[in-house]
Amino acid sequence: MNTTGTLFRVSIFGESHGEKVGVVIDGVPAGIMLSEDDLNADLDRRRAGAKGTTPRKESDAPHIVSGVFDGHTTGAPLTILFDNENTLSGDYSNLIKHPRPGHSDFVARVKYDGFNDYRGGGHFSGRITLGMVAAGALAKKILASKGIKISAEVTSIGGDTEKRHWSVIIEQALTSCDSVGGIVECRAEGVPVGLGEPFFDSVEARLSHLLFSIPAVRGVEFGDGFASAAQKGSEHNDRIKDGEGHTFTNHAGGVNGGITNGNDIVFRIAVKPTSSIATTQMTYDFDTNKVEPLMIKGRHDACIALRVPVIAEAAAAITLVDFMLMREGYRKR
Amino acid sequence: MNTTGTLFRVSIFGESHGEKVGVVIDGVPAGIMLSEDDLNADLDRRRAGAKGTTPRKESDAPHIVSGVFDGHTTGAPLTILFDNENTLSGDYSNLIKHPRPGHSDFVARVKYDGFNDYRGGGHFSGRITLGMVAAGALAKKILASKGIKISAEVTSIGGDTEKRHWSVIIEQALTSCDSVGGIVECRAEGVPVGLGEPFFDSVEARLSHLLFSIPAVRGVEFGDGFASAAQKGSEHNDRIKDGEGHTFTNHAGGVNGGITNGNDIVFRIAVKPTSSIATTQMTYDFDTNKVEPLMIKGRHDACIALRVPVIAEAAAAITLVDFMLMREGYRKR
Amino acid sequence: MNTTGTLFRVSIFGESHGEKVGVVIDGVPAGIMLSEDDLNADLDRRRAGAKGTTPRKESDAPHIVSGVFDGHTTGAPLTILFDNENTLSGDYSNLIKHPRPGHSDFVARVKYDGFNDYRGGGHFSGRITLGMVAAGALAKKILASKGIKISAEVTSIGGDTEKRHWSVIIEQALTSCDSVGGIVECRAEGVPVGLGEPFFDSVEARLSHLLFSIPAVRGVEFGDGFASAAQKGSEHNDRIKDGEGHTFTNHAGGVNGGITNGNDIVFRIAVKPTSSIATTQMTYDFDTNKVEPLMIKGRHDACIALRVPVIAEAAAAITLVDFMLMREGYRKR
Amino acid sequence: MNTTGTLFRVSIFGESHGEKVGVVIDGVPAGIMLSEDDLNADLDRRRAGAKGTTPRKESDAPHIVSGVFDGHTTGAPLTILFDNENTLSGDYSNLIKHPRPGHSDFVARVKYDGFNDYRGGGHFSGRITLGMVAAGALAKKILASKGIKISAEVTSIGGDTEKRHWSVIIEQALTSCDSVGGIVECRAEGVPVGLGEPFFDSVEARLSHLLFSIPAVRGVEFGDGFASAAQKGSEHNDRIKDGEGHTFTNHAGGVNGGITNGNDIVFRIAVKPTSSIATTQMTYDFDTNKVEPLMIKGRHDACIALRVPVIAEAAAAITLVDFMLMREGYRKR
Repeated sequence: MNTTGTLFRVSIFGESHGEKVGVVIDGVPAGIMLSEDDLNADLDRRRAGAKGTTPRKESDAPHIVSGVFDGHTTGAPLTILFDNENTLSGDYSNLIKHPRPGHSDFVARVKYDGFNDYRGGGHFSGRITLGMVAAGALAKKILASKGIKISAEVTSIGGDTEKRHWSVIIEQALTSCDSVGGIVECRAEGVPVGLGEPFFDSVEARLSHLLFSIPAVRGVEFGDGFASAAQKGSEHNDRIKDGEGHTFTNHAGGVNGGITNGNDIVFRIAVKPTSSIATTQMTYDFDTNKVEPLMIKGRHDACIALRVPVIAEAAAAITLVDFMLMREGYRKR
Repeated sequence: MNTTGTLFRVSIFGESHGEKVGVVIDGVPAGIMLSEDDLNADLDRRRAGAKGTTPRKESDAPHIVSGVFDGHTTGAPLTILFDNENTLSGDYSNLIKHPRPGHSDFVARVKYDGFNDYRGGGHFSGRITLGMVAAGALAKKILASKGIKISAEVTSIGGDTEKRHWSVIIEQALTSCDSVGGIVECRAEGVPVGLGEPFFDSVEARLSHLLFSIPAVRGVEFGDGFASAAQKGSEHNDRIKDGEGHTFTNHAGGVNGGITNGNDIVFRIAVKPTSSIATTQMTYDFDTNKVEPLMIKGRHDACIALRVPVIAEAAAAITLVDFMLMREGYRKR
Repeated sequence: MNTTGTLFRVSIFGESHGEKVGVVIDGVPAGIMLSEDDLNADLDRRRAGAKGTTPRKESDAPHIVSGVFDGHTTGAPLTILFDNENTLSGDYSNLIKHPRPGHSDFVARVKYDGFNDYRGGGHFSGRITLGMVAAGALAKKILASKGIKISAEVTSIGGDTEKRHWSVIIEQALTSCDSVGGIVECRAEGVPVGLGEPFFDSVEARLSHLLFSIPAVRGVEFGDGFASAAQKGSEHNDRIKDGEGHTFTNHAGGVNGGITNGNDIVFRIAVKPTSSIATTQMTYDFDTNKVEPLMIKGRHDACIALRVPVIAEAAAAITLVDFMLMREGYRKR
Repeated sequence: MNTTGTLFRVSIFGESHGEKVGVVIDGVPAGIMLSEDDLNADLDRRRAGAKGTTPRKESDAPHIVSGVFDGHTTGAPLTILFDNENTLSGDYSNLIKHPRPGHSDFVARVKYDGFNDYRGGGHFSGRITLGMVAAGALAKKILASKGIKISAEVTSIGGDTEKRHWSVIIEQALTSCDSVGGIVECRAEGVPVGLGEPFFDSVEARLSHLLFSIPAVRGVEFGDGFASAAQKGSEHNDRIKDGEGHTFTNHAGGVNGGITNGNDIVFRIAVKPTSSIATTQMTYDFDTNKVEPLMIKGRHDACIALRVPVIAEAAAAITLVDFMLMREGYRKR
């Protein structure tokens, strides 16, 4: 449902065109210095501005309304709210009758008997990731104090790994009223040995759970990932080179048996091309009961992958903080 | 940890060389006809016997000790036990001192302060998946009564998608004391529209969670998966062709916005080459504090991917039953 | 932590003197007609106004910011916010140094290393129950549509069960700068047979869990409760009189084996006297390291039990809705 | 459902006349010395033998089948099995047609559509508490190493607090084919300040949750409990006498604001008289559709309260260990 985590628990809420979106973070250790400013850098990265992402201006200003006192976390649930600005905008009701391909319009209509807030995708909107990013910024701050650093970046757009080609690829997508997919790679450095809990809370299990919650994610792989399916054991196995568990190679992506092994955690996620495209698409119309042409209005990201790195970092950070807290619980004393 | 699910809850336990492994399934609806025989077909598929999988003979006979009465499930927790046969076998203590590359030996030693049962990987052993497969067989029986069918198969071994090449590839791996990876594809047919729960319990999130719990899995993708990162929106979007949500194509793999859309769910998982190989590997030795050659004894699967299809089916079935039960809870009446 | 429930999940947040308190309700079935007005009657009952409760004026106006669209629930998380009005009021820092007897001041200071928001008890304040009451109002609306009615009332104050004595009892408590406890009884009518889930989610287990979350509750009993410890089986056992499970008596309070039996659920809760009293109390002072006299300023409820009925109803309603949703999941079809 | 706990997780399974009952304990820290012998003292106390408890002989021998290696816990799930001995005994099918007053026979029949294992109450049997007691013995061992001691005893039988009267009271109950209720008091000493998690995981909330899971419990109270409802604040408030939080009195039972305050936790539970009595009771017969006399065969406890102390200790110990592990997670470092 809309909550994740065992000790560090993140609950998100809101709809694209509702009054507010937000996040409640329960299980935040007390005494962490925190203000809205700590969240803004990551929120700005999500909002982006790079070509290929929506130019729509929204404040995205976080507002902490509980859980912080005198500039520090209190140990009580930390709630962060964001105002939506376009709550009165336009008529989206045609999305129910004529659902957009690749979107949640159709499934939401069926699942919620037509009561879903369909405006801009409602609760299925990517705007809901604001709360994840804010929670991630806090989580990264906690991890940084333990020497753990998380960073993600786009490594491929439209199948092309050459960064210098990307702006042309995106330009062409926009020109042709189309969109393109991409790959995001994320790395966590400084991770101690022993995070993750067998059997069902392996590092990959919990991380992929959050990553696949991000709209538009189609694939997740760790270390060599899908390439490892074509490898031999003698190639894939990482030989251990010291007593801290460092390995000569890192085909495993920092995880053995679902537990962190002291090397960098490395994973990649495949992001599909933005579903909203400005070209006409044929799709079923519930009013006419026929397949009819649909034209989606408004401006949209040509490459949603560009926004994903900071969300992927958030997913990783939230997961790792939870594992860190759990590990302390089980630690021998 | 070792339990998964919201209403249909699966808890696994046991170690490779302990006395028993098993599973407790809580939340099984009452009145389902069930005996050990219903589980054997899938357990046999897991045990395999195909070239490339361990010839080791173990009974793998399931023993239901609670939750079934007069041949039907009772609604109480259903417990299935399996005996381990090789509980007294040999000396594995060198695995602590000289951890195997690609295995959990090192991380388990650190995580559990040396108290882990290291014999055969202990609780990290693939043998623990017996319980998942048994739970999956029950879940598939429940789904079958609703018209849902789940099936998985190996689609690639060692990078080769031609089935007729596989036995040679495996033969060569065995001859060269090596192992090979593979790809498994799974499909769920007859799935109704509307399964999955936003935001963090999307179909992909929950499915990947279980799939990445399976030892040796390195990647998971839905529909076109990683290939979609190189596609355009106009290629990737599935146009809806009727009021039931059927689409002309299925690039999405049956899921939009994290919710089933009425088309087949399709996903693929990348399985790394078996970590245990008979060739000598250099790796750190805690006794000598040096990198030393390690020779792993015993016979091992040359291609662990061959065992994975039935486990992937189990993961999918367990997840879908849970979603089905949840949906009934939320359904409008 | 700050979330409760399996399918109908209630998360509360906020502090007494923070900016807002609120509640997120996840798992609300779509299509329930709902506006702020539906919540006000119960919120008014909680605010009270009866002699013996705080005269402090606060708007307590609920503000729904997500999960409702076009006057109906959407199936997405429903968030309700309340503004705090006295966020700048006064200096409470002495509560850290000189903790109030019966309050959380001391334990919060230790638990959160002094970072807790100590103003007015912070997150431990009874003000946090606003969210529970709002969630309860929604839950009661859902239950009403199934023919289930929940009602609670005070049955004893200061040990006196005669209602006509109460105003004198409270008057005297106020005059003597003291406070009094009370008993609240709650009844749920129209409950179907079969709610509750063995073993750890019995009706009593889950209900008491929520009831003991309410500040000031010291005891919970079902049916004859503590009196049953002095009874004989022949007195206590309720004989069944028809095929619907109705019984001639209701010593069990509507629950057998942890499962509803079709009779009214009846429980009572003991509420301690308000901890804040206007009389001087000796208690430890961390500044002087001595036991020193403490005078608590401000006006306080003389009998907090008067506010508890509507909160007890909320606890019961939230629990029963969750059980109703779970039962649908497991129902044979 | 049948699992409880956040980090220290206890799952029970089994039926009275099934093949086995048992418990899986997940989240046990590694490195605790443990054998079956550590469990036997508590299991013997539960079996009892005192007049008033069933003379039925059952081995109740625990069998650890996972999670212990070389005499220590491994960190993996710890599974303990118990054989049932009377699995073939007699015909209980009349319990479906003619449900026993005070028992789960009727509700289980309805809830599970008649598929419940009705023999001896099936999964609702008190025999299921074997697993709780075993888990409790382990939990108490963990707590003892932290200086925490838990002990419970019967303080009243049939309304009489004089221990020297009890054997006569029980004798008379047996002679008159009847049963009697009782009160059990439990105390936890050496508990540190700060256990428990607001808002919904207060100490009382979590403890009562487990206590009300124990069959036959009708009431739970902390500290002065129901008596506090007749007290004044000036009587009830515990003045703090030192910097460790020790109080001059302990009316609160060791808990303020739901958090342990460093004083002994004290609670009492009301146990109803055994439902199975040898006297004839009128109750509904589904075969004849009339209220008919029912005679319950077999020998039964005259006072089930006598068995409850060790189960109450288990409930307390399981809860406190979980809180201890959680606290370590959140502790400032």
